[in-house]
Amino acid sequence: MYREQIKVLDCTVRDGGLINDHYFDDKFVREVYKAVSSAGVDYMEIGYRCSKSIMSPDKFGKWKFCEEDVIKKAIDGIESNTKLSVMVDVGRVEKYDILPCKESVIDMIRVATYVKDVDKAIDLVNTAAEKGYETTVNIMAISRALDNELDEALAQLEEESKASVVYIVDSFGALYSENVTYLVNKYKKFLKTKEVGMHAHNNQQLGYANTLQAIIDGCNFLDATIYGIGRAAGNCPLELLMGFLKNPKFDLRPILDVISREFIPLREKIEWGYLLPYAITGMFNEHPKMAMALRKTKDKDSYRDFYDSMSAMEID
Amino acid sequence: MYREQIKVLDCTVRDGGLINDHYFDDKFVREVYKAVSSAGVDYMEIGYRCSKSIMSPDKFGKWKFCEEDVIKKAIDGIESNTKLSVMVDVGRVEKYDILPCKESVIDMIRVATYVKDVDKAIDLVNTAAEKGYETTVNIMAISRALDNELDEALAQLEEESKASVVYIVDSFGALYSENVTYLVNKYKKFLKTKEVGMHAHNNQQLGYANTLQAIIDGCNFLDATIYGIGRAAGNCPLELLMGFLKNPKFDLRPILDVISREFIPLREKIEWGYLLPYAITGMFNEHPKMAMALRKTKDKDSYRDFYDSMSAMEID
Repeated sequence: MYREQIKVLDCTVRDGGLINDHYFDDKFVREVYKAVSSAGVDYMEIGYRCSKSIMSPDKFGKWKFCEEDVIKKAIDGIESNTKLSVMVDVGRVEKYDILPCKESVIDMIRVATYVKDVDKAIDLVNTAAEKGYETTVNIMAISRALDNELDEALAQLEEESKASVVYIVDSFGALYSENVTYLVNKYKKFLKTKEVGMHAHNNQQLGYANTLQAIIDGCNFLDATIYGIGRAAGNCPLELLMGFLKNPKFDLRPILDVISREFIPLREKIEWGYLLPYAITGMFNEHPKMAMALRKTKDKDSYRDFYDSMSAMEID
Repeated sequence: MYREQIKVLDCTVRDGGLINDHYFDDKFVREVYKAVSSAGVDYMEIGYRCSKSIMSPDKFGKWKFCEEDVIKKAIDGIESNTKLSVMVDVGRVEKYDILPCKESVIDMIRVATYVKDVDKAIDLVNTAAEKGYETTVNIMAISRALDNELDEALAQLEEESKASVVYIVDSFGALYSENVTYLVNKYKKFLKTKEVGMHAHNNQQLGYANTLQAIIDGCNFLDATIYGIGRAAGNCPLELLMGFLKNPKFDLRPILDVISREFIPLREKIEWGYLLPYAITGMFNEHPKMAMALRKTKDKDSYRDFYDSMSAMEID
């Protein structure tokens, strides 16, 4: 039995772009868009909308900026009911770079924020909502949030923001299922008029499992990526999630197809997904950056030494 | 906070043996035994005890038979508090090949059975218990058990068997967390005087997550393997489980060490672990044998065709 309110958001190109500085070519993005459209995925996040006045276009590919013409060209001629989303980071976008929704191919704008920046996030998400977009606020690094600060942020989001969804973002892949339950219940307590979203990372092979737990607990917006692509350990794999969801509108087969054609060859060139150093940073509730650095050295499989180096970090 | 009753059983050599017909060399088995001993693992299952009168020694390595002298040689001189286990299959062992426990290096005998063979399993496990061993009954292919037959089997195991633990074995990696909860609750309802065990497979990246769910639900015997080694998608990875368990007797580091030295090179030679064809057989609640066959062909990454072939199986 399915729950009709459940929406799936594919963030393959957006989160995957974090491992190649957003330099996907048009063919790849078209193939992803075709696949998620055929599969009945509700939303596809195609990249970030950063302002070129803030982030240099010399250092990033075009999916860091997602200009309207760039998106239009990539999706041209593909039949689709999948809505398009872009992510905006607090402090990395000028409001004038957010067009009125009617003039844009984008349907949804998601604001990524830390708990401490919630006031800026509310200001930004309200701007997007007033311009006519569907909107979400995604609270990153949730496993490091102080409980009293999170409570205050959620209360503010309920009272002051026009976002229709607020996400739990397990940036470090540090949550266990009992933490997911705790957080979804907390979100639901504060967010009486909004939906709860889940964005899980796969550091401890729990990306999919934690997404299932969030479903059980009543979360209705679910992020996933094809073949789990994403920074470091990657995300909840879309193909597993679609194998679980019962809504007849979903079709797993186009996703399996594009994995064989595009993602298996890509994985030979770029590394992502579950690997022990990412599991270790997840256990320590740390950003994966040290594990990502390790994987570029000849000691990439020296797990015990890496564990010891994480244990040895001096804290007082 | 840890639960003192929790016991971890490493079945690396036993379940891993299913992918190389039990031809591990002594050095590998010694390294595993050293690692799990240093890590504080409670039990190590070192192989099967099959009778050579039933299974041909020409077709299998020595860990299919686990003769006393073979085990003694492999563990000689290694300091350890880890108890040794062997698995016996209903119909593949003669009772005279089970020595009295006092004359054996083995501490625990685990009887693997299907629901339909529970009477034979009870007869075998009682023989082992009477000879002085700790004993378990492991009910395989649990995701295919008919509910009324499972109820009857569990009632019999409670009343007629001397086993101290009865396991849930998710042979096909088909269970979701809600199924785990359902089964652990059912087991606990019938097995008032016994512990419940969990043996999970990783077809859908849920091996570890389902083991955690079993812990939450009150299961105290947990199977895992180093680097998740095991047939097809493999098992709950011991290193993830030990990263979660809080009992100070456990030390993750020797496991990380042996993975770098022994398992990374071995994985280059033999394939195991999460791969999409195993996820697909898990979704269909099927034995992974068709996926294992696929992985030996040039179409090993043709996931959509494989999915369609599973869908097309005619059932009436």
